[in-house]
Amino acid sequence: MTRGRTVLTNVNAATLQSDTPGYGLICDAAIALEGDKICWVGPKDDLPTKWRALPQVDLGGRLATPSLIDCHTHIVYGGSRAREFEMRLNGATYEEIARAGGGIRSTVAATRAASEDELLAYALPRVDALLREGVTLLEIKSGYGLDLDSELKMLRVARKIGTLRPVQVLTTFLGAHALPPEYEGRSDEYIDFVCDQVLPAVQSEGLADAVDAFCEGIAFSPAQVSRVFDRAQELGLPVKIHSEQLSNLGGTTMAAHHKALSADHLEYLDEAGVQAMKDAGTVAVLLPGAFYYLRETQHPPLQLLRDAGVPVALATDANPGSSPLTSLLLCMNMACTLFCMTPQEALAGITRNAALALGQQDNCGTLEAGKNANIAIWDVTEPAELAYRIGFNPLNRLYFLGKNITKTHVA
Amino acid sequence: MTRGRTVLTNVNAATLQSDTPGYGLICDAAIALEGDKICWVGPKDDLPTKWRALPQVDLGGRLATPSLIDCHTHIVYGGSRAREFEMRLNGATYEEIARAGGGIRSTVAATRAASEDELLAYALPRVDALLREGVTLLEIKSGYGLDLDSELKMLRVARKIGTLRPVQVLTTFLGAHALPPEYEGRSDEYIDFVCDQVLPAVQSEGLADAVDAFCEGIAFSPAQVSRVFDRAQELGLPVKIHSEQLSNLGGTTMAAHHKALSADHLEYLDEAGVQAMKDAGTVAVLLPGAFYYLRETQHPPLQLLRDAGVPVALATDANPGSSPLTSLLLCMNMACTLFCMTPQEALAGITRNAALALGQQDNCGTLEAGKNANIAIWDVTEPAELAYRIGFNPLNRLYFLGKNITKTHVA
Ligand SMILES: [Zn+2]
Ligand SMILES: [Zn+2]
Repeated sequence: MTRGRTVLTNVNAATLQSDTPGYGLICDAAIALEGDKICWVGPKDDLPTKWRALPQVDLGGRLATPSLIDCHTHIVYGGSRAREFEMRLNGATYEEIARAGGGIRSTVAATRAASEDELLAYALPRVDALLREGVTLLEIKSGYGLDLDSELKMLRVARKIGTLRPVQVLTTFLGAHALPPEYEGRSDEYIDFVCDQVLPAVQSEGLADAVDAFCEGIAFSPAQVSRVFDRAQELGLPVKIHSEQLSNLGGTTMAAHHKALSADHLEYLDEAGVQAMKDAGTVAVLLPGAFYYLRETQHPPLQLLRDAGVPVALATDANPGSSPLTSLLLCMNMACTLFCMTPQEALAGITRNAALALGQQDNCGTLEAGKNANIAIWDVTEPAELAYRIGFNPLNRLYFLGKNITKTHVA
Repeated sequence: MTRGRTVLTNVNAATLQSDTPGYGLICDAAIALEGDKICWVGPKDDLPTKWRALPQVDLGGRLATPSLIDCHTHIVYGGSRAREFEMRLNGATYEEIARAGGGIRSTVAATRAASEDELLAYALPRVDALLREGVTLLEIKSGYGLDLDSELKMLRVARKIGTLRPVQVLTTFLGAHALPPEYEGRSDEYIDFVCDQVLPAVQSEGLADAVDAFCEGIAFSPAQVSRVFDRAQELGLPVKIHSEQLSNLGGTTMAAHHKALSADHLEYLDEAGVQAMKDAGTVAVLLPGAFYYLRETQHPPLQLLRDAGVPVALATDANPGSSPLTSLLLCMNMACTLFCMTPQEALAGITRNAALALGQQDNCGTLEAGKNANIAIWDVTEPAELAYRIGFNPLNRLYFLGKNITKTHVA
């Protein structure tokens, strides 16, 4: 079998390589592809002789970046929360919304009631919105099933998305997302159930690549989450956490002690938590969509994270209740506008650092030899435009595992 | 010549008719089209006999709304301000940015330097982003030329966009947008120039449908704008204003005394200004994209406008310096999230009230007999979803003047 070989030329490459400053920009670059991998990246004039005779694709002076990575989504779910959004803006109280069947419980009920095919049909248009902007790696969490069958169902749907679309899907088991109604007042028993029954089933079916939990006053305590993480680690699964979103409970530090891949949200994170992340190599995942949608005012401690050298990723948090956002480009702009991140930090946040948050740094997230040939080509003249524009998609074409998939699958 | 006749069926119609409450929703509606007009709208069971034998288009239970209207844009311009955005986020001061050629003067210089073809080529992708979300009526302002030739050039490009795309374009002369560098310290003389030379030339070439001005401490005083408006009215052109965005100078009241079609921005508008708008029939155009991008904290007086019964429209304000936004759907979400408008107000703001802001209420903005057959069909189950989602485009198809233009021009 011959492996396809091509050289992309007449392109400016924002490589995002971690050993280069800023965007790792190479003007008038060449990117050599062999099969599904990048073989060589550098200034075109330095292209090794053996690559010079290969077929070339002229990219018209456009910008190349690593294709995008959404490292935190809840994109598989049943039902809609649009009516709840509308009721609240019309002045309804939380009790009125709850009485009308709103809140996360409505999503749990609708997700439990939906078949796998239905959940898939609901999720695909949302996934497609992400893919149209250049996403080729997508994390999807469970957590709206909250019973054995429904959690397995959500994870199967997530896995299936990766077979139906040109995207790599990583699945995360989030059984400890919310207390299901049938466990009202018995949260420790629910954690037992998650640890003893659901997690082992998930693992034996090979349905999860990681385990997550929501550590918050309205969800689970650090001690409860710690039990879930212990069990995950016994089963060989890496962990991550939703923490310090609405208050500081110390969940991030606890997660760092479990060598968490990432801690996500982090608005209320303090300096000790930042240091614990640094020590553990835990990535900070900021979610400006939820900050925006919930009209939060407490900003995540970006400067502390910068000072400590903790890698910062960004994600949509795509979910029906607190971030119905399906645009990573808009997420970049929100990170700049709401958190005052720089465009360079924002782009690193949805490429290199998002790969790190998913433990995929050896496969993707930068343009360098040996990584997957997952490359986005943009109709822009400089990388900052990707974060600067609002509600505009300048994707010109997209390579996934060495193939140009723009025409066939995405556009 | 036969005029095409069709009936759209199996559709829920949010008619936005002003004599009906809320969305003016008709479930299981029929919408009869003849040529470029809507002939009949109502419950399908009430469809008059003479329409029953016509060809029917089954819309699969989807939602129909009036197609969208962006009533305030500066979408024609040269250059990019992405680098300035990046410099600011990297900590550059305003002086450093000005020294590096940033600010509105950089847009004026780039717009003056660009040919008509270049300005057109820059604008079309931005326009197409709006059209892909269902826009069929678009206002475009001049105001980055600020000399005779360059203002005429901008307006010609705006007119040309309406001939190249399936969209109605209305043009607005905004000579009094900013003081050009060659008039530094001589703003009254610049107003003379606008009134005596540019406005008459614009009018004699038939290039403008209205006249706008920026009334603000950093732009022009109410007295100066009043002179422009007097001249516009002598020439038979309706007026509109950018006012009370950063401070309260009373520009809105002055504009209302000139029977302005709309007053736009309005964050600092007071009760007297609201009353003047009500008395004059002036529409309030809110621009949440600029509020968001500039990180403003002063909200427009929405409750005062509601209480007075002033119609409220929304627009993108698409421009390179303070609102690089090219999504009206996102604009709706921002109006709800940032200004706490209801989804119903937001939808009226980009349909019925946007038509009113452009003086086009007899032609479009609602689904009713006699209006243009400009209709958007959406893959949603209820109208609130249009405002609720963030970074998602559920447009299924789009009718412009009776023709389904989705496949041929937009998708
Ligand atoms: Zn989440
Ligand atoms: Zn404006």
